[in-house]
Amino acid sequence: MGDFPDVLQIKDTAVLFIEFQNEFASEGGRLHGAVKECMEAKKTLDNASELLANCRQRGIRVIHAPITFADDFKELSHSSYGILKGVKDGQCFVGSQWGGKIIDSMLPLPSEVVVSGKIGLCAFSSTNLDFLLRQLEVKNLAVCGFLTNCCVESSMRTAYEKGFKVITLPDCCAATSVEAHDAAEKFTFGMFSVPLSTKEFLSKVV
Amino acid sequence: MGDFPDVLQIKDTAVLFIEFQNEFASEGGRLHGAVKECMEAKKTLDNASELLANCRQRGIRVIHAPITFADDFKELSHSSYGILKGVKDGQCFVGSQWGGKIIDSMLPLPSEVVVSGKIGLCAFSSTNLDFLLRQLEVKNLAVCGFLTNCCVESSMRTAYEKGFKVITLPDCCAATSVEAHDAAEKFTFGMFSVPLSTKEFLSKVV
Amino acid sequence: MGDFPDVLQIKDTAVLFIEFQNEFASEGGRLHGAVKECMEAKKTLDNASELLANCRQRGIRVIHAPITFADDFKELSHSSYGILKGVKDGQCFVGSQWGGKIIDSMLPLPSEVVVSGKIGLCAFSSTNLDFLLRQLEVKNLAVCGFLTNCCVESSMRTAYEKGFKVITLPDCCAATSVEAHDAAEKFTFGMFSVPLSTKEFLSKVV
Amino acid sequence: MGDFPDVLQIKDTAVLFIEFQNEFASEGGRLHGAVKECMEAKKTLDNASELLANCRQRGIRVIHAPITFADDFKELSHSSYGILKGVKDGQCFVGSQWGGKIIDSMLPLPSEVVVSGKIGLCAFSSTNLDFLLRQLEVKNLAVCGFLTNCCVESSMRTAYEKGFKVITLPDCCAATSVEAHDAAEKFTFGMFSVPLSTKEFLSKVV
Repeated sequence: MGDFPDVLQIKDTAVLFIEFQNEFASEGGRLHGAVKECMEAKKTLDNASELLANCRQRGIRVIHAPITFADDFKELSHSSYGILKGVKDGQCFVGSQWGGKIIDSMLPLPSEVVVSGKIGLCAFSSTNLDFLLRQLEVKNLAVCGFLTNCCVESSMRTAYEKGFKVITLPDCCAATSVEAHDAAEKFTFGMFSVPLSTKEFLSKVV
Repeated sequence: MGDFPDVLQIKDTAVLFIEFQNEFASEGGRLHGAVKECMEAKKTLDNASELLANCRQRGIRVIHAPITFADDFKELSHSSYGILKGVKDGQCFVGSQWGGKIIDSMLPLPSEVVVSGKIGLCAFSSTNLDFLLRQLEVKNLAVCGFLTNCCVESSMRTAYEKGFKVITLPDCCAATSVEAHDAAEKFTFGMFSVPLSTKEFLSKVV
Repeated sequence: MGDFPDVLQIKDTAVLFIEFQNEFASEGGRLHGAVKECMEAKKTLDNASELLANCRQRGIRVIHAPITFADDFKELSHSSYGILKGVKDGQCFVGSQWGGKIIDSMLPLPSEVVVSGKIGLCAFSSTNLDFLLRQLEVKNLAVCGFLTNCCVESSMRTAYEKGFKVITLPDCCAATSVEAHDAAEKFTFGMFSVPLSTKEFLSKVV
Repeated sequence: MGDFPDVLQIKDTAVLFIEFQNEFASEGGRLHGAVKECMEAKKTLDNASELLANCRQRGIRVIHAPITFADDFKELSHSSYGILKGVKDGQCFVGSQWGGKIIDSMLPLPSEVVVSGKIGLCAFSSTNLDFLLRQLEVKNLAVCGFLTNCCVESSMRTAYEKGFKVITLPDCCAATSVEAHDAAEKFTFGMFSVPLSTKEFLSKVV
């Protein structure tokens, strides 16, 4: 872990919950089938719920980062490709629909900040996340959610370049296969973060 | 104007309407008193309404950029200074209140994009504006609104650095004094944009 | 490949060569041992040399993105962690030393742009790359180099969010193991780019 | 000054010296004629030299931000407009020429960081400045140099949005007229910074 701080001060620390939305996390969500196996293998929701409860109990700052689009996906290019084309073609994450809502068990409290503007993958690239983190003087950012190797990983990479102390929480993440999840954890998470289990992370926050 | 294009293709062009919200633009808005004189001198609302109507008629892309905060301004630092401190202390631009709403005469159509996330001054710095402009393949960006020398000017400066062909429309802007407005127009707009009257701008878009 | 363009216009296209420096690519480089096996398996240098020669012959824009530090690494934090800590502890990529130089076979021509400022991983995050690409009106960006799943992947992810049409060229990349390289290619490249062989890429550029 | 800190800790503070280059600041520089009157009125160089000497004596971090271009200005668009067109047409700030060099009295020490990549106006937009400031854990950023209402002002605006505590030092700045300088100081500096005299600033740093 090198010179990463041994303890993380509560006042300097935030946990970013990325895309805990029905589309991914609930039976019936358009992308649930794709992530279900990995969610079960990692116990993603159990761990994330426990993490959220603990954060609230102990006053660790919680930030939510859902992704949502207009009904007609007017935010996206007519010549989309890659994952955004998949999102658009699949009509996923429409803000006005059930699929675009945060799952009941992870609903933000009124006191918690919800990132606005997310129509890209990295939680920083189209949002006010960096602005918020600087205003709130967050130094240590723990990231988790969906997909391990897409939005979570992009957010981890960007947060690292921006000088945050980044913690990844693989047991609160899921990808479209266990293999894809494990590859991110094994090959890239250590370059841009300190990967910890939820339990380890919580024990480091004081 | 140098090598600025003589004509602006409709398909490549967007007009960004910044903060046409009651707080600034309507009698009773918390900051209306500060900008009223300049609005009258420049006929800001008349020009902006005409511009908006023309854009809609001719299919020029319209983008709205309001700024809004939570009731408790939880997005901002406890040690704010400068203009954000003024905004917070004055309880301005609360999203759930009348002051934070876009004025009736400039309300977005469902087909128009509204920038999300704006809790800073520059319309790019805490939003999905750049993401949207790249997706929508906008090359020429005309900016107008409030304040001439604050959010409009910051947006102009950033858009210029990002390689957009930037047009400023001073007659659709207002500041807290005519002198402040005129200083921006005289000293800085020409460095980072081509300033045009609304009439001139519309005649260049084909 | 979805709505990705079938052909890439030469005038809209650039190839970004990331960190073809002695530290990685030459016998004796401090990190060469780590990437040697993968370089051989993918024929990274053969493919990259052929690509570079082809670009020069046909007038496809070439951009170089080396990473360099001062002798004392004064650019980096005293509490580095992750890959930047590895770079600093290993005294890698010092600009004034042989290891920090671009390898002889890939040396930039005076007419080619070399990105400045790179002291981070993503080729955008600490550099003038975005500024340059916008000034030069590049729309299609092909990326290659070292490491497949570190700087190349971060650059791919960012370029995608910025609205470029991104092409990855895995056969001109290498990572610290074939397994790590292949995982990136298999699990993440398709989300944020169109991965092509060098041969396929060159046949699409017209 | 609102909730701006009363004292600035040396370890958290940096002074950014923007474009103290011959082109602006020395007799014979291509843009010297344009700024000479304002430099004399504000005693820009006297104040900046005193500031620099004081910083070095007391260990306040110094960062230099010059702007430089290749001999053929290959970094800039063929259809430049605004101030970058002026820079290119005037062949200003060529890195290999005398005009592009930092003036003798302000030359960086080997221990001081020099920002790389600056080919835009804002000292953040095409550089590694933000990356450096985050690595070096700078919280308070004092900005000065040329032009008061161009690069200095853009840097101030961006630094404010990024959450730094920004101090502007008008008596270490100059613009192309005293009127333009004074307009920036009067109308915009207070929105995005705490403007201080050099003397006041130094007395606040402890």
